[in-house]
Amino acid sequence: MRVQAESAFRIETDSLGDLPVPHDAVYGIHTARALTNFPITDVRLSHFPELVRALAMVKKAAALANRVLGVLAPELTQSIIEVCDEIIQGRHHEHFVVDMIQGGAGTSANMNANEVIANLALKKLGHSYGDYGLLHPNDHVNRSQSTNDVYPTAIRLATLQRCEPLCVEQRRLSQAFEERAAAFSSIMKVGRTQLQDAVPITLGMEFASFAATINEDVERVIQLGELLKEVNLGGTAVGTGVNAPPGYAALAVKYLSEISGYTLIEARNRVEALSDLGAFVTFSGVLKRIAVKISKICNDLRLLSSGPRAGFGEIRLPAVQAGSSIMPGKVNPVIPEVVNQVAYQVIGNDLTVTIAAEAGQLQLNAMEPVVIFNVLESMRILTRSLAVLGDRCVSGIEPDVARCDELLRGSLVLATALVPHIGYEKAAAVAKAASSAGRTIAETALELGVMTHEEIERALIPQAMLGPTAGTTS
Amino acid sequence: MRVQAESAFRIETDSLGDLPVPHDAVYGIHTARALTNFPITDVRLSHFPELVRALAMVKKAAALANRVLGVLAPELTQSIIEVCDEIIQGRHHEHFVVDMIQGGAGTSANMNANEVIANLALKKLGHSYGDYGLLHPNDHVNRSQSTNDVYPTAIRLATLQRCEPLCVEQRRLSQAFEERAAAFSSIMKVGRTQLQDAVPITLGMEFASFAATINEDVERVIQLGELLKEVNLGGTAVGTGVNAPPGYAALAVKYLSEISGYTLIEARNRVEALSDLGAFVTFSGVLKRIAVKISKICNDLRLLSSGPRAGFGEIRLPAVQAGSSIMPGKVNPVIPEVVNQVAYQVIGNDLTVTIAAEAGQLQLNAMEPVVIFNVLESMRILTRSLAVLGDRCVSGIEPDVARCDELLRGSLVLATALVPHIGYEKAAAVAKAASSAGRTIAETALELGVMTHEEIERALIPQAMLGPTAGTTS
Amino acid sequence: MRVQAESAFRIETDSLGDLPVPHDAVYGIHTARALTNFPITDVRLSHFPELVRALAMVKKAAALANRVLGVLAPELTQSIIEVCDEIIQGRHHEHFVVDMIQGGAGTSANMNANEVIANLALKKLGHSYGDYGLLHPNDHVNRSQSTNDVYPTAIRLATLQRCEPLCVEQRRLSQAFEERAAAFSSIMKVGRTQLQDAVPITLGMEFASFAATINEDVERVIQLGELLKEVNLGGTAVGTGVNAPPGYAALAVKYLSEISGYTLIEARNRVEALSDLGAFVTFSGVLKRIAVKISKICNDLRLLSSGPRAGFGEIRLPAVQAGSSIMPGKVNPVIPEVVNQVAYQVIGNDLTVTIAAEAGQLQLNAMEPVVIFNVLESMRILTRSLAVLGDRCVSGIEPDVARCDELLRGSLVLATALVPHIGYEKAAAVAKAASSAGRTIAETALELGVMTHEEIERALIPQAMLGPTAGTTS
Amino acid sequence: MRVQAESAFRIETDSLGDLPVPHDAVYGIHTARALTNFPITDVRLSHFPELVRALAMVKKAAALANRVLGVLAPELTQSIIEVCDEIIQGRHHEHFVVDMIQGGAGTSANMNANEVIANLALKKLGHSYGDYGLLHPNDHVNRSQSTNDVYPTAIRLATLQRCEPLCVEQRRLSQAFEERAAAFSSIMKVGRTQLQDAVPITLGMEFASFAATINEDVERVIQLGELLKEVNLGGTAVGTGVNAPPGYAALAVKYLSEISGYTLIEARNRVEALSDLGAFVTFSGVLKRIAVKISKICNDLRLLSSGPRAGFGEIRLPAVQAGSSIMPGKVNPVIPEVVNQVAYQVIGNDLTVTIAAEAGQLQLNAMEPVVIFNVLESMRILTRSLAVLGDRCVSGIEPDVARCDELLRGSLVLATALVPHIGYEKAAAVAKAASSAGRTIAETALELGVMTHEEIERALIPQAMLGPTAGTTS
Repeated sequence: MRVQAESAFRIETDSLGDLPVPHDAVYGIHTARALTNFPITDVRLSHFPELVRALAMVKKAAALANRVLGVLAPELTQSIIEVCDEIIQGRHHEHFVVDMIQGGAGTSANMNANEVIANLALKKLGHSYGDYGLLHPNDHVNRSQSTNDVYPTAIRLATLQRCEPLCVEQRRLSQAFEERAAAFSSIMKVGRTQLQDAVPITLGMEFASFAATINEDVERVIQLGELLKEVNLGGTAVGTGVNAPPGYAALAVKYLSEISGYTLIEARNRVEALSDLGAFVTFSGVLKRIAVKISKICNDLRLLSSGPRAGFGEIRLPAVQAGSSIMPGKVNPVIPEVVNQVAYQVIGNDLTVTIAAEAGQLQLNAMEPVVIFNVLESMRILTRSLAVLGDRCVSGIEPDVARCDELLRGSLVLATALVPHIGYEKAAAVAKAASSAGRTIAETALELGVMTHEEIERALIPQAMLGPTAGTTS
Repeated sequence: MRVQAESAFRIETDSLGDLPVPHDAVYGIHTARALTNFPITDVRLSHFPELVRALAMVKKAAALANRVLGVLAPELTQSIIEVCDEIIQGRHHEHFVVDMIQGGAGTSANMNANEVIANLALKKLGHSYGDYGLLHPNDHVNRSQSTNDVYPTAIRLATLQRCEPLCVEQRRLSQAFEERAAAFSSIMKVGRTQLQDAVPITLGMEFASFAATINEDVERVIQLGELLKEVNLGGTAVGTGVNAPPGYAALAVKYLSEISGYTLIEARNRVEALSDLGAFVTFSGVLKRIAVKISKICNDLRLLSSGPRAGFGEIRLPAVQAGSSIMPGKVNPVIPEVVNQVAYQVIGNDLTVTIAAEAGQLQLNAMEPVVIFNVLESMRILTRSLAVLGDRCVSGIEPDVARCDELLRGSLVLATALVPHIGYEKAAAVAKAASSAGRTIAETALELGVMTHEEIERALIPQAMLGPTAGTTS
Repeated sequence: MRVQAESAFRIETDSLGDLPVPHDAVYGIHTARALTNFPITDVRLSHFPELVRALAMVKKAAALANRVLGVLAPELTQSIIEVCDEIIQGRHHEHFVVDMIQGGAGTSANMNANEVIANLALKKLGHSYGDYGLLHPNDHVNRSQSTNDVYPTAIRLATLQRCEPLCVEQRRLSQAFEERAAAFSSIMKVGRTQLQDAVPITLGMEFASFAATINEDVERVIQLGELLKEVNLGGTAVGTGVNAPPGYAALAVKYLSEISGYTLIEARNRVEALSDLGAFVTFSGVLKRIAVKISKICNDLRLLSSGPRAGFGEIRLPAVQAGSSIMPGKVNPVIPEVVNQVAYQVIGNDLTVTIAAEAGQLQLNAMEPVVIFNVLESMRILTRSLAVLGDRCVSGIEPDVARCDELLRGSLVLATALVPHIGYEKAAAVAKAASSAGRTIAETALELGVMTHEEIERALIPQAMLGPTAGTTS
Repeated sequence: MRVQAESAFRIETDSLGDLPVPHDAVYGIHTARALTNFPITDVRLSHFPELVRALAMVKKAAALANRVLGVLAPELTQSIIEVCDEIIQGRHHEHFVVDMIQGGAGTSANMNANEVIANLALKKLGHSYGDYGLLHPNDHVNRSQSTNDVYPTAIRLATLQRCEPLCVEQRRLSQAFEERAAAFSSIMKVGRTQLQDAVPITLGMEFASFAATINEDVERVIQLGELLKEVNLGGTAVGTGVNAPPGYAALAVKYLSEISGYTLIEARNRVEALSDLGAFVTFSGVLKRIAVKISKICNDLRLLSSGPRAGFGEIRLPAVQAGSSIMPGKVNPVIPEVVNQVAYQVIGNDLTVTIAAEAGQLQLNAMEPVVIFNVLESMRILTRSLAVLGDRCVSGIEPDVARCDELLRGSLVLATALVPHIGYEKAAAVAKAASSAGRTIAETALELGVMTHEEIERALIPQAMLGPTAGTTS
């Protein structure tokens, strides 16, 4: 490194030649080149702190393993570890500046980490940025490593870090629905299949099914998140571990487990593990599954709250903003709507992940950056939108008990409850007559004299209209 | 070719060696190998008569050009042309047996055509199947051609043949909606945005918008179908026209235009035209657009007919089958539902087309078979489902005028119509009071004394509640 | 039922009125209406025998439970069971004629089963087709059931039946790769990352990674197939079990487990289980994952066999058909190509499944038919194409050892192996000189005098060029 | 509005009640609520200046029309217009703070615009922020408008603004390829179909095909961008124009055309135009088409530059960053790789657009925000990546003429050129012998004595090996 006198730049050098780097830049020449090469999304590594932390965790684990194996001097190891710890604690992230979408299979992300750690460590040791003679981004920070094992490991760790926050919001939302289900447990209402009136159900059952379906997905996140715990660290460039000392892989993975708190395991086949993104395809599929379900739920909330007068109108969503400047009093289901849109984004992102995963070639998949970008973005917006949905919508939902009751009493499907008493044919005749006359089943049955008032009442009591297994579904 | 005595097989030979072919098979060895290699979907070329016809048209055009250029003997040309004409008329399709999804960029489809045409022509000339000394599938039927210009040309022609039937059904469905729109033109009803009650509209306007949106897509099919009229015939193996005589390309395309009735043009850049499937990506995108719109319409029909008692209930779809064995009288919107599913299939198929189009490499896209399979399948199921939707659903839709009227009178959004008379604030107060009391805007306004009965009537006449541009929207 | 004298038709009646049904049709009026309503794909239920069998299994289980609970007479039960057993054994499938894509959430499929079973049972009892007085499709065959629990249960069972055949082919293909990996274990070659020459690997490692990645997916199919074992049988119309006798659900599921051989469990929440297709979204995601991986492998096989002269040329795929009529001796990788296309189809089908799953509304997802159509189709074509890939391609792959060796010796990346001996800078200088001169690393190192011939030989022995963990990756 | 003494907040009020808004916020209460409701992506309206400008253009056009029609006072109009002009010029964008993904069909975006314009206009008029008595966001800035015509119009205008920059980069990239094609026009090389050696082509033809395919897409952008010029401004809430004065629509669209410079037209059917997103489905499809093609091209560039020693190696991409810390001298195709990833993102985004477009209901599609977010993001990253690809990769590509020549001379497909001279059979024999002996076609033909040296030379001259139409393809 040469410093230009009186200059705002220092000169760094790599195999392509010299390049001026801003004098106070904590990153170095590889990062600088990447900034020029990849001006794509404006979304930098630092937008995803979990990824920055994951890179630092890998670097720390590698340094520890290198020290034990005698290939990294203790004092260098020490300064590297201190910097990594600071990054893990949330400091220095602003220096992780390369674009999330980048060519090179993550080389620029890895080099950005190597350079930032090296320069911060140099500073701790009393040296200047760029003074790599003592402590070099490649020779020391990246020791025994290749982008091809660092980056795949880091993106798995980053994803794992986002699982717990996601599960927290899934559980909170599920509980919000549970709580409403309990409150609504005695509200009988018309069931609907194919948007047509069907046999009765309770509003509580309906909300309990929302709770249940979300809750199931917590299990899926945990179950399929496990696939991400198999890491290829130690495989270096092509999975053979070339240039890593014997014993390095096991040691590095052991340290990384301790540092991260996840029980990571060495890839069973490091050559396979390097190029395969199957775990991300599957995990992104879980995110898509969550999206599909939550979108269905939001569609249902919008249907059930349609109206207030000319729709289903069985529930009222909390008003969170005015709906229209033209129509006074209009309130729209904006929270479910935004969640629907998040779901569509997650489904689109999953496709990007799929196509990128298919694009691996031979020993590597160079398209990993767009994969992790989409997975982390999907996790972030899903997590946030589940929180918004629970806090600003579900927990404040109110039933319109009178409306539920009115629609139920008017329903022609109640004729189903008469079948055990008067047979299918007579019941159908009652339904037909009620439909023509625009009256209720109860009124018509009485009028036609097929049953006494008392019998009708008994047939139409809530318990009879729900089935025998109803009790087991909440 | 050698015939095995007393055998059900004849022996054919290619560069890989000998193979027995059923004695009476009209196809030959290349087809036989393809049957073994591609036992994938059970869907054969013959499932898409338009593709079989297209292959025959190309073969006929090539034969005519070859004769004029002196590279195919007149008597051979004649017999080839006769066979092609028969295939174009719909005969012999049962011999086009290879799987629609096949490796080899269509080589097997092309060879299936070459062999069937050669053998049928041989028979016309008094020779046996497989007696290729006189008239050879490659040397004569495929003369001046390569799979790489025959197949891309044929799949474009096949797609073009499906355009007209599709447009016919689009127009018929649009007209069915138009006809209903005219019948419903005076039925005022609540408009709905975000599933919430909004300012009034007529049922006629709603149906006219369905007619309009479908009609627009006829233009898109025609406009973007044009892209398929640029063909690479004459480019042979890599677009350079190697092994085709000078003048062949222009002549063959001219004949193909005459035979097919489409004004085809020579590809501006045959090298590009060979490997690029952009025209199919765009055309499949039109099919997806139709699917998206028709799915939205079917969703609307299902919403508007939801009920009969506990839903919107503004229209009634014709009953085409019983809906439930448990619930007497239940009728479901099965026709819109099946069309929704077709739409989802078309959207999925479009993705397959997209991914396959991206998989081209250098001078060829070997994935064309799965592209044309999905495009033709989407066109077929779209065409059929538009017909079913129009004939078995739309044309029989009946309005529930009383219901429309009842919901409109009850709507709080009518307060909007009072704004010009009593101002936004007073109108909002009326809406609020009506909401609390469960009464109508008219009743409440009168009760609160903000307007006279006469004034209210005047404000709420249909004309006032529709906007100034309403007249231009039908 | 009335029989028209001298007629080819009998008249059946449902709530919509009378309809002539072919005299000898084993199906009845509901099926006949469905044939008119859904003329979409030409693909009938019978195209998927596993689905027909699954429907029969459900009907048998229901009949058994109904008999025990006293709601179905023993002699009727007996004849229903006999018919079901015959269908399970593969008979009568030709009468399952409704289109796979149908409106009504599977009602037509269920009614097709009810009618066929009823008529065949009637015949066993000495009655005529359509003589439903004794044994009715709805009242007896469909007893205690609704399409809404029969169909969701049957489509899960159908999918489960396709799992084992799929896993068999996954394992066979994995073994084919293993066998080749063993044969290729000592063939050193250039590794490639981002299509650029990288540090060495063995051809055996490369093939072992293919075996490993396929093998992993067997675990995924088994793991996520488990989700399909939770069935909603007994929930009837909306999940409450209305019209089923107490105890029915548990009993029916127990019998179905016995009949099918799968350990099925009752849905934890039947209301949720009815409308949720999450299990299919996840399972289809596994199929997509298999497709993504197999497509990547096929891309690799095509790259590695590219040539024969102007490509990588490290392996030779077996020739299974002639490649070109223009270019003598050209042989194309048609088997991998067809598998690529199958993969694209599966990815597209997964999207259709996703969109359909999102379209559930309230108590039902009416779009199940298109979901199961796509899942079963994907499983079928994947299973078949894995078999073709193993049998007609992988097992016959031959290495070009001389080519592997030649490319490895020429590779500039061998300079990496000199780093431990002469340092990074000198090694880079050797690489640069070799590149300029068009010579090998070994020649250049000797020429520049940086190492002795002996030292070079030692540095470049295979063992040194693979990493320390290489041994663990096979 | 009440100002809290000594407070950092002012109190604003809407139909939901009071809310403190930061004292110096240029936005108001609706925006403040939206900030709480939609904390989703961190991507604000201001991230897309074209959308902010488009909103201002619509507001200006509306104000002008309102003034002419006498429903907006001249002095208010004047101040509104001044503010709009400043926004159009790029000022004040930092106050457009709501999330791009929002519920409410764009209401929050529209209100953000209304509030910012009102407050800035108030300031111009000497009033305080929030002092809406004089000039109100709804009553004046939003006069004669609804979110439902403002937002759909603005998102079309925003997209149109991004078309020209995209086309500029498409043309520049096409020209970069053209320029290389011209430079490479005489370099003969092996063609490749299905990755197998095929008949010759020139490197120039290959690059000219890239230029041509990109160029075609400029036409598609222009052609299908036209669909976006049909706007529903004037339709207000449901397309009927309620609350807009007669003549408003035509006038507003006329002004908007003048302001924007695009020849906009009034929607033929405003009811349809409000809920339909077909134009975006189609336009996004064009972006997908560009993505598919550019991805194919990048794949080709990576194939052609594979090596440097063990790949195709026919071209060299400029080195823009070091490729590996382990392997000295390795340079990777990072620019094509990043463009591939952008393409995958665009394809995923297109799916999000598709699903959102299908989710329209009745008079509105509430999912427009996620549609425009994805369309604008796709346009931005496509535009940028085309620029990077041209500037940092294509323009610096160098051919390896010797390599092209060596591979061509070694190719067995040259036997094709002998066919016209010695017949197919003898040519095939030469090819077979050359293959076995590992020699060239020329050497083998001479050795076998089938042609003289002179004849061979003549047969293998470049002109003969390209086809008759080769000249027309550049």
